Amino acid sequence: MRIVGFRHRAGDGAVGDVQVGALSEDGARVTALATLEEFWSDAAALLAADPAAAMGAPDLAVDDVELVPPVLPGARVVCIGLNYLKHVAEGSFSGQALPEHPTLFARWTQSLSVGGVGVPVPVDEDGLDWEGEVMAYVGAELADATPEEALAAVVGYSTFNDITARRAQKLTSQWILGKNADRSGPLGPIVPAAEVGDLRDGLRVRTRVNGETVQDGSTDEMVYTVGDTLALISRTFTLRPGDLLATGTPSGVGYARDPQWLLHPGDVVEVEIDGLGTLTTPVVADR
Amino acid sequence: MRIVGFRHRAGDGAVGDVQVGALSEDGARVTALATLEEFWSDAAALLAADPAAAMGAPDLAVDDVELVPPVLPGARVVCIGLNYLKHVAEGSFSGQALPEHPTLFARWTQSLSVGGVGVPVPVDEDGLDWEGEVMAYVGAELADATPEEALAAVVGYSTFNDITARRAQKLTSQWILGKNADRSGPLGPIVPAAEVGDLRDGLRVRTRVNGETVQDGSTDEMVYTVGDTLALISRTFTLRPGDLLATGTPSGVGYARDPQWLLHPGDVVEVEIDGLGTLTTPVVADR
Repeated sequence: MRIVGFRHRAGDGAVGDVQVGALSEDGARVTALATLEEFWSDAAALLAADPAAAMGAPDLAVDDVELVPPVLPGARVVCIGLNYLKHVAEGSFSGQALPEHPTLFARWTQSLSVGGVGVPVPVDEDGLDWEGEVMAYVGAELADATPEEALAAVVGYSTFNDITARRAQKLTSQWILGKNADRSGPLGPIVPAAEVGDLRDGLRVRTRVNGETVQDGSTDEMVYTVGDTLALISRTFTLRPGDLLATGTPSGVGYARDPQWLLHPGDVVEVEIDGLGTLTTPVVADR
Repeated sequence: MRIVGFRHRAGDGAVGDVQVGALSEDGARVTALATLEEFWSDAAALLAADPAAAMGAPDLAVDDVELVPPVLPGARVVCIGLNYLKHVAEGSFSGQALPEHPTLFARWTQSLSVGGVGVPVPVDEDGLDWEGEVMAYVGAELADATPEEALAAVVGYSTFNDITARRAQKLTSQWILGKNADRSGPLGPIVPAAEVGDLRDGLRVRTRVNGETVQDGSTDEMVYTVGDTLALISRTFTLRPGDLLATGTPSGVGYARDPQWLLHPGDVVEVEIDGLGTLTTPVVADR
């Protein structure tokens, strides 16, 4: 099953509240399952249900809706910055010891987007950088949780491209400005955790720019697991249903290459992950 | 005028959507002005209006409502980390050159709270640290704005205590875990920008712990102004009505003292700012 958010389209714009639905096999139709709030109030059950059993639910052509992230506006998007050893080695932190704990930074939901939507290059950037990765979706409240409890609360995963404005990211010691550019966080559809299995078994994560492979890693290379990281977070703040954890990117990002390679308007970047599909993002000039 | 968010109270809990209202002079009553979405769709006009002119609007006893932050769930809370020279000098960054740009970190709205609400000490912390400061509220869209345009878009200011879980903040290079503990970001009522005037003229910012003054600074000491900082941000992402900017704290925080002084359950911390009032926060043991 592949879960998306959508709004009805009317004239030039989208109208009404965000709904959550299941994509058909061919991706052409979406079956409405719940409102966004209903979905996150019982995501585990809704993800376990057979969408064909949603008798009488409206079945809409994807062309007649606007796809949006199935994410609550107030959700926290916690991101792991350095989680693949070869990516640590290629970047600005290469000379330093591996931190004992995951390096966590923040995205706001306003930076999120979906596949097919253009991401603009901010005015002061030479280009944008790619970071293909797996996004994990929390479906239960977690406070002072064990790693096992935390992992059990993950209801699904999706593709994610943590598209980065490197100049802004590196302006000071803190990264968040460059990690929240407009539409810079495209997400693929959510796949139920039960269908994905254990990330530690290794899902291949590949990123391509204009068809050329630039990242090719596997989730079994992760230093900090999803369960350990969520458990750690839950000892400082209570995770809520609908919160997200971006699990970090493998090596092969653009700024660390010689010569540097950044995305410019007209480029197309794809993130393909075993079992999660392919997320395609065009780079555009203007907001 | 002092603007608050509130929800109706019913039995043990709050019900209904968040409303925005004006507090009476004595703080005992609140006049409903708009829903949260309505307020932020035209905050400048609503803040300029005379609440007494809200004829027929419900006037409620504060004791009959639950006060909440008048903040959209999807708002971005951008925070300046090092903005008063004496605070830079007292902390972990004291040996380094002052960054050319403001050091920006992120809070999610789920960490926000209001005066009088207890903030719990996370399980792994020795205590919590205080950071009294001014919060600025953005009322218009800002994309590639000039500093003058950005400052003109600020519709109001409030007190804010950027209460920090220092251990979590310092676990890695990135601060956000320790800046988002449950209920760790209390906000006072919003005062219209026209009533506050220019921060560069100097508003005194004082923090007291159990009555003892621990911070005593003035907003004219700020290194990075509100206009410059919002303009900088707007060159990477589009600021929207309802986004917030925390302007940084003066010197005198607890972790930099010798001996270190942190907040424990039973302590009460107050932030008092000229023209913005006093924000009182008790520290409690449990979430």
